[in-house]
Amino acid sequence: MIADLPYEPLLEILGVYVSAMSGALAAVRKQFDVFGILVLGWATGLGGGMLRDVLIGAVPPVGISDWRLIVTAVAGGLTMYFFHPRLERARRAIVMLDAGALAIFTVVGTIKGLELGTTATAAVVVGVMTGVGGGVLRDLLTGEVPVVLHHRQLYAVPALLGSSLVVLLWWWDRLDPWTVAASVLLVFALRVAALRFRLTVPGPWRGFPQR
Amino acid sequence: MIADLPYEPLLEILGVYVSAMSGALAAVRKQFDVFGILVLGWATGLGGGMLRDVLIGAVPPVGISDWRLIVTAVAGGLTMYFFHPRLERARRAIVMLDAGALAIFTVVGTIKGLELGTTATAAVVVGVMTGVGGGVLRDLLTGEVPVVLHHRQLYAVPALLGSSLVVLLWWWDRLDPWTVAASVLLVFALRVAALRFRLTVPGPWRGFPQR
Amino acid sequence: MIADLPYEPLLEILGVYVSAMSGALAAVRKQFDVFGILVLGWATGLGGGMLRDVLIGAVPPVGISDWRLIVTAVAGGLTMYFFHPRLERARRAIVMLDAGALAIFTVVGTIKGLELGTTATAAVVVGVMTGVGGGVLRDLLTGEVPVVLHHRQLYAVPALLGSSLVVLLWWWDRLDPWTVAASVLLVFALRVAALRFRLTVPGPWRGFPQR
Repeated sequence: MIADLPYEPLLEILGVYVSAMSGALAAVRKQFDVFGILVLGWATGLGGGMLRDVLIGAVPPVGISDWRLIVTAVAGGLTMYFFHPRLERARRAIVMLDAGALAIFTVVGTIKGLELGTTATAAVVVGVMTGVGGGVLRDLLTGEVPVVLHHRQLYAVPALLGSSLVVLLWWWDRLDPWTVAASVLLVFALRVAALRFRLTVPGPWRGFPQR
Repeated sequence: MIADLPYEPLLEILGVYVSAMSGALAAVRKQFDVFGILVLGWATGLGGGMLRDVLIGAVPPVGISDWRLIVTAVAGGLTMYFFHPRLERARRAIVMLDAGALAIFTVVGTIKGLELGTTATAAVVVGVMTGVGGGVLRDLLTGEVPVVLHHRQLYAVPALLGSSLVVLLWWWDRLDPWTVAASVLLVFALRVAALRFRLTVPGPWRGFPQR
Repeated sequence: MIADLPYEPLLEILGVYVSAMSGALAAVRKQFDVFGILVLGWATGLGGGMLRDVLIGAVPPVGISDWRLIVTAVAGGLTMYFFHPRLERARRAIVMLDAGALAIFTVVGTIKGLELGTTATAAVVVGVMTGVGGGVLRDLLTGEVPVVLHHRQLYAVPALLGSSLVVLLWWWDRLDPWTVAASVLLVFALRVAALRFRLTVPGPWRGFPQR
């Protein structure tokens, strides 16, 4: 670990648990069976990290080899399986928790990219992928177009800023538990602000004004 | 090879051939062209193994490097290309052969995971992936939601039991050609029993009874 | 580099730029947001190469680690973002440029496969994948069935012939800048001829004639 983070395992488990709930919820809505619901939880909670690990050569990815993370994802899936009628109504809380998972995954993913000795560019890319990849996998497996690509919310942009910040901190030799925690909070705050103030990114350019 | 299996190449070729037919049939139904039909055969027959190999670092996967397996998959695709009007009517036989392919791929995939020195957890996961991954790829490439996630049949569950059994046998140092054959037969028998007796896994939980 | 090609970086940048435009155009049509449009450009321009690199173990793939290629893909995406109302009308030119990208990616991808010491079979497969993989990724991410599998045009077949030719040239020890350039031109010419003369590959076989 470049920046030895005493709180990292706790953060990661929280992120996996919450993301797995989001994946399982999508599967419940599509009337998947219980196996499909748990697989969606696993793919959403751990898919971003697995994509990152395959791309940077850290195989086998922890998403298939670490039983504690798999149990966490399955627990998130089971939580949604049994309690979805109530949790559907707690949508606001889930969206906030998902913002937390985005922040955690992005920052931890960027750091893992730096540790594996990839280029700074690759660390930024895999950081964003770790943050948004689970959701992309969830959407593809449920037959949807990935929501992060077309919903026009600020979702990937906070991740991009966060992973770029982590790479800059590493460049300046300023990566420590405090700056890492600040980076997580920054991504989280940007995402929450985007939700609160309905900040959007533009759709296709409608053409330059006629001269 | 952990367990030296004299019959393994024959099993694998049979599994690839039958799975490739299942992929090519899906492509025929979607009116793909002959290139698409053969690619679907290849992706379905060899995709589960390729997913496994990429995740455990056994690259390049045999699915792209071993011409005998590729020829087998193409042969399965061509068989379906030319004979689909008759084979459509032999659906019952195809379902049984597919159960055989599931059993073979799961057990062989789990053993390959163990050989590569991954964790026991990873061996179970990649075993199931080898068994069901080709079908998932087939469904994604034909624009369908993966059937294994929502059809409520016992399909992945026999694979999960089979790959867990293989890992237990390896743990107890009891992996030999006979116990491996027994594991293949167990997965096959469970799958056939599920078909015969219409065993299902439940869909989303409908909520706890009102108090 | 097996065949030291002085013109290779230029070719690759041109291929990435044009393919990225094709991906961004698909995203514009689906009303993706600007982040989604640029991601589609990146995935289409660099996805075939990333798929190849992951399969042959050349990680991290240049598509995530080389900022020049990423900037090129983003530039292609931005070009389409701002100029799509005019570029839509230039469809004929885009199709021709896409034929060029197919030819470049296939030949360069096959050579990279040979350099990494994979089997001849794997080099042919990854060559075709490099050529058509970006388009497959584009279609999957926009919720479409991959067009290369069902459109019945000669698109993958020229790539297959081109990558086979490169492997034969390597086998005969005849791979030099001139024969490589000739291979690129061959794929391009076949693709353009297919467009010009509406050459097609057949759909599903309709059954043998009744006896």
